[in-house]
Amino acid sequence: MTQVVEYVKDMMDIASTYRSQGKTIGLVPTMGALHDGHLKMMKQSIEENDVTAVSIFVNPLQFGPNEDFDNYPRLFASDLEKLQQIGVDYVFHPTVEEMYPRELGMTITVGHLAQVLEGKKRPGHFDGVVTVVNKLFNIIQPTNAYFGKKDAQQLAIIEKMVEEFNHAVHIVPIDIVREVDGLAKSSRNIYLTDEERKEAVHLSKSLELAQQLYDQGERDSDVLINEITQYLQKHVSGEIVEVAIYSYPELEEQVTISGQIFISLAVKFSQARLIDNIII
Amino acid sequence: MTQVVEYVKDMMDIASTYRSQGKTIGLVPTMGALHDGHLKMMKQSIEENDVTAVSIFVNPLQFGPNEDFDNYPRLFASDLEKLQQIGVDYVFHPTVEEMYPRELGMTITVGHLAQVLEGKKRPGHFDGVVTVVNKLFNIIQPTNAYFGKKDAQQLAIIEKMVEEFNHAVHIVPIDIVREVDGLAKSSRNIYLTDEERKEAVHLSKSLELAQQLYDQGERDSDVLINEITQYLQKHVSGEIVEVAIYSYPELEEQVTISGQIFISLAVKFSQARLIDNIII
Repeated sequence: MTQVVEYVKDMMDIASTYRSQGKTIGLVPTMGALHDGHLKMMKQSIEENDVTAVSIFVNPLQFGPNEDFDNYPRLFASDLEKLQQIGVDYVFHPTVEEMYPRELGMTITVGHLAQVLEGKKRPGHFDGVVTVVNKLFNIIQPTNAYFGKKDAQQLAIIEKMVEEFNHAVHIVPIDIVREVDGLAKSSRNIYLTDEERKEAVHLSKSLELAQQLYDQGERDSDVLINEITQYLQKHVSGEIVEVAIYSYPELEEQVTISGQIFISLAVKFSQARLIDNIII
Repeated sequence: MTQVVEYVKDMMDIASTYRSQGKTIGLVPTMGALHDGHLKMMKQSIEENDVTAVSIFVNPLQFGPNEDFDNYPRLFASDLEKLQQIGVDYVFHPTVEEMYPRELGMTITVGHLAQVLEGKKRPGHFDGVVTVVNKLFNIIQPTNAYFGKKDAQQLAIIEKMVEEFNHAVHIVPIDIVREVDGLAKSSRNIYLTDEERKEAVHLSKSLELAQQLYDQGERDSDVLINEITQYLQKHVSGEIVEVAIYSYPELEEQVTISGQIFISLAVKFSQARLIDNIII
């Protein structure tokens, strides 16, 4: 039976009780609209911890003024059913007023890591992410917290925060979960038209193409970026917002590739902006 | 026997072990050069918690470029003796490199609460305080943390941080400890010349004067500020840097006094800038 917790104080009391008993807590932070990617993280958390808590909170701080905060899917009833089915212990589901009762008296600003890729296009987005995840870590006191590699920049920033703020939590990165045709699962996929849904498979296919070229020895970022871009232009109607290659997790731009990199895509369809990436 | 802990990881492991056994931890954060004000907080922590940890760390982030970071008194050997005598369990004494191993990837900025009084005169000071205290709270995971009312603005800001970041810690405010003649104890008092030390008694005397006027019904901030300023001008050779009346803990300027206020003084002697305050 999944227990719904709506208040910060209640969640803190529950977490403190478990921690004082030496129990481990796994946290999967989400904004709801749960898909198989989320469920995979939760199943792993259930395996690896005594107690698993999922947070469902659509965090206004990480949405820009022209972004989809109001229209972001909120499907708590069906989400809760999914949590019940896989055996999640607690779902922390506070209101905006509960999380942000007053105007903020202090702000957290992410530096260099937020000034590239998604962060560059969405000013303040990662400041909002870090602000809420810092709160969630203190409220839920997780031993392990699960984050998807799909949001690779977010993962790098959260790991940096844990290191700098000295949170007593272990971050567990989870591989991207894909549909059978390769499309990365996302809460925003439901906004694709049928035609766009068919095209969307080519995001992952373009990354496979890049992996092939890399395996054949290609180390010039511009060559790889051009190949991916041309491939996407041929196969998708959406606007190609970004094709980029950065070192990981430092997020430095790469001219000639060395060390671990990630290739990141963003394509804007009529009602949904999709991202995908591969870490090589 | 007070155990000296120099590494973040060791301190986190020790704290986690106690917390997982349901033990309470008291934290007294200091920059060393311990005086009776600090010792009072430690004794209270020892009474109220299973384990008491004191941090001694001169935090470079809270010193401005022209402030006394290099010359701040560092007296670890004699500090440690004091901790042994009163029975503190752990002293966390990291190097600057241990606390800040790399350039900061994210910054915490305090808003309104840092833009008045000390904060106005020392830009970035409270950002530095909050940055290090946030780290200490995560490293030491205290049940209770002890802060002096002498630094009333700092106390208000730390309480705001705990509220906003949802730290699972109870802040315990400790009354100002004074010398027999009334001078507030401070690590910086040792920098006073003999003559200045005699004059310094008038900081607390001027606050007593204000309390008397308040008790007689005076509610006009300007009148009280003028009375204090004139008194100080007559009795101290140092520069009167600030005489101010603010609401507490909101730190709003008061024209006509209502609700809880604090009266704050700062006087700059030849080698030491002293502060004092009273909460009415």
